[in-house]
Amino acid sequence: MDKIIIKNISIGDELLIGQVINTNAAWLGEHLSDAGFQLDSALTIGDSEKAILNAFNACMDADLVLVTGGLGPTADDITKPTVCKFFDTELEFCQAAYDNVVSLFKRRGFQMSERNRGQAYLPKACQYIPNTYGTAPCMWLEKKGVVFAFMPGVPYEMKGIFNDELLPRIKERFQSVPYEKRVIMTTGIGESFLADKIKDWEDNLPEFLALAYLPQYGMVRLRLSGRHENAELLHKTLDCEVAKLTQLISEYIFAMQDQPIERTVFDLLINRGKTFASAESCTGGNIAHVITLIPGSSEVFKGTAVTYATPMKTKVLGVPAETIERYGVVSQQVVEGMAKGVRDLMEADFGVATTGVAGPSGGTEENPVGTVWIGVASAKGVVSQRFNFGKDRENVINRATIMAYEMLRQQIITD
Amino acid sequence: MDKIIIKNISIGDELLIGQVINTNAAWLGEHLSDAGFQLDSALTIGDSEKAILNAFNACMDADLVLVTGGLGPTADDITKPTVCKFFDTELEFCQAAYDNVVSLFKRRGFQMSERNRGQAYLPKACQYIPNTYGTAPCMWLEKKGVVFAFMPGVPYEMKGIFNDELLPRIKERFQSVPYEKRVIMTTGIGESFLADKIKDWEDNLPEFLALAYLPQYGMVRLRLSGRHENAELLHKTLDCEVAKLTQLISEYIFAMQDQPIERTVFDLLINRGKTFASAESCTGGNIAHVITLIPGSSEVFKGTAVTYATPMKTKVLGVPAETIERYGVVSQQVVEGMAKGVRDLMEADFGVATTGVAGPSGGTEENPVGTVWIGVASAKGVVSQRFNFGKDRENVINRATIMAYEMLRQQIITD
Repeated sequence: MDKIIIKNISIGDELLIGQVINTNAAWLGEHLSDAGFQLDSALTIGDSEKAILNAFNACMDADLVLVTGGLGPTADDITKPTVCKFFDTELEFCQAAYDNVVSLFKRRGFQMSERNRGQAYLPKACQYIPNTYGTAPCMWLEKKGVVFAFMPGVPYEMKGIFNDELLPRIKERFQSVPYEKRVIMTTGIGESFLADKIKDWEDNLPEFLALAYLPQYGMVRLRLSGRHENAELLHKTLDCEVAKLTQLISEYIFAMQDQPIERTVFDLLINRGKTFASAESCTGGNIAHVITLIPGSSEVFKGTAVTYATPMKTKVLGVPAETIERYGVVSQQVVEGMAKGVRDLMEADFGVATTGVAGPSGGTEENPVGTVWIGVASAKGVVSQRFNFGKDRENVINRATIMAYEMLRQQIITD
Repeated sequence: MDKIIIKNISIGDELLIGQVINTNAAWLGEHLSDAGFQLDSALTIGDSEKAILNAFNACMDADLVLVTGGLGPTADDITKPTVCKFFDTELEFCQAAYDNVVSLFKRRGFQMSERNRGQAYLPKACQYIPNTYGTAPCMWLEKKGVVFAFMPGVPYEMKGIFNDELLPRIKERFQSVPYEKRVIMTTGIGESFLADKIKDWEDNLPEFLALAYLPQYGMVRLRLSGRHENAELLHKTLDCEVAKLTQLISEYIFAMQDQPIERTVFDLLINRGKTFASAESCTGGNIAHVITLIPGSSEVFKGTAVTYATPMKTKVLGVPAETIERYGVVSQQVVEGMAKGVRDLMEADFGVATTGVAGPSGGTEENPVGTVWIGVASAKGVVSQRFNFGKDRENVINRATIMAYEMLRQQIITD
């Protein structure tokens, strides 16, 4: 069975001048993989006829080309005329596309503009695929056996159309090869040391499996994946290899699937029927933000006091003003007071607190930029630790958030 | 003066299976533009010799190829041997690269592994460029007049090396064409209607200027940009066109540069010497999170009470329990009570509050998923409004956050 070659082309000047980050390519790659296909390459080009034609021509060795972007109502979109040129066809009015735009505007209670009517003109040679998520149409065209599928660039619309309309058509047309992946999340060990610990195991992996290391903010994700025509063999081999791997590095693993550490904490708390609250200074609400992205987080999360202004640490959390004055706002005494204070205030089982210097200014000799104290209070008492997370403000906030969840996790599992 | 053709290649299986989103291409595009260059295309490929060689060959029509990724210490990296093949050279030990790795480990207080020694082997034909941000080296090679520059894929390292080392070398080698862009941020009007309002102006723009519409979460960014060998003419023309545009749509503009709305609010408050605090239910701390990403936000931001658990709205914010019982937690009365409550608690000039149903569950007939009440309290009193931000949880949180800042902005400027 020959491998199907799939390429992605993203069209948009805004992607090349960096005003918008291309998230569509990664999303398509993930969802193609899960469906047993594989994305071979992803190319981003600008809104120019020449660039589009060059890219289309360079894809004539593929089986399927997924094109995103360039189909909006405004004047910076030149995709459709270029499509006509490449496929040697012309635009014509498509009643179904027009009706779709009309009904969408009706549903949203907006008035339709003449510009949106233009969106109903499609290349004659194309198969029209309805987009119930927006006004830009989705199109399917073929040239010399190569399928080109066009989707809007707005991620929300692209995802909806791909799942509802395109993936079923792709599955019908092309044969997939069973694919499976496992992700193991580790923390507390660097990439090189992890690699040394599992070298023998990695060297002896069967040929159809591949391991990748994905370090990020004090964690390393390990991805073991493979493709095999025998899906059962693939599945069993992965089970076996993951079991061996787990034995080698069990103390560093916090999840056996690709999930952020707050998800692990969420699951642990749900299972135990416990709750937590946070008192945040330098993390500025990010501990609350990431947990509340999880649906159902109200089951385990009581709330947060972001006490950015120092007097609020006393007024809201009850940290004595003399403690702050004596030890400084970035100190073990204050972080422990905050953790205990928010646990009491929010009537939670665990209280987690942060205080530090996110930068770029505010550093002192004693507490340079990047210094963060993290504390966790529980019925047993309070633990705390001092870290330095470097000089970049966003990096400090993210790493402190992850470490706060890791310390919370340690307290939950030893509770 | 001929245009310099610059292409970017990102190497990494993790980018194609969607485990990591490629942010490097956008960042490079932005920083090249600002320096008077232009990114022509950005290609993402997997860790395979064949894919890498194909991509290199396809770039032989460029002047400069910026390659990111594939230089880490672990076994999934095959870039360097492939580079040797393409440039017909071999790996040799590079003392400067080795010393760099040693000093980096020393600085961080970590022990060095044998694997990291391997990172000091570089293609003989390359010019070594030091990386003070990490262990992966940076390399500069040429083939038939095409320059290939290799950087690590870790964004923090890539950015540091590009700014410190590569950009100066690029500027020395290639001539740039003056480029300038202006970004105008609008809210409260859809893309099509905006386009209709400014059609005549847009149609009459000089040829060397281009306008792009970038809609996102209830805002539309307008980008007017151009390239011209006469930098002064370019600058003056942009001044003039932006002035005309501003007249046409002044009521929708919240910033005359590319910045999030919380930055506009930050600037307004700094100028007026005023402060705010937030009481967040459905936004779960995101209002606090985005403002605290701004260095110096402690000048204007007092703190937040995330009262995810309903009783905390009474205990922490002083919203009477009978108000919550009578009107429901998602109601005008509760959001106004929260806004006033947090303004008092945190001793701020403005209090902004949210309460709603972020979903996916928790919706009722009266308050379906996506319903959000937003309130802003000031010395003058309290204003509030009801919205529906659709069904996607993350979308609801983001749109509610932006709208909360927009309502806060309205109150500040009319204060």
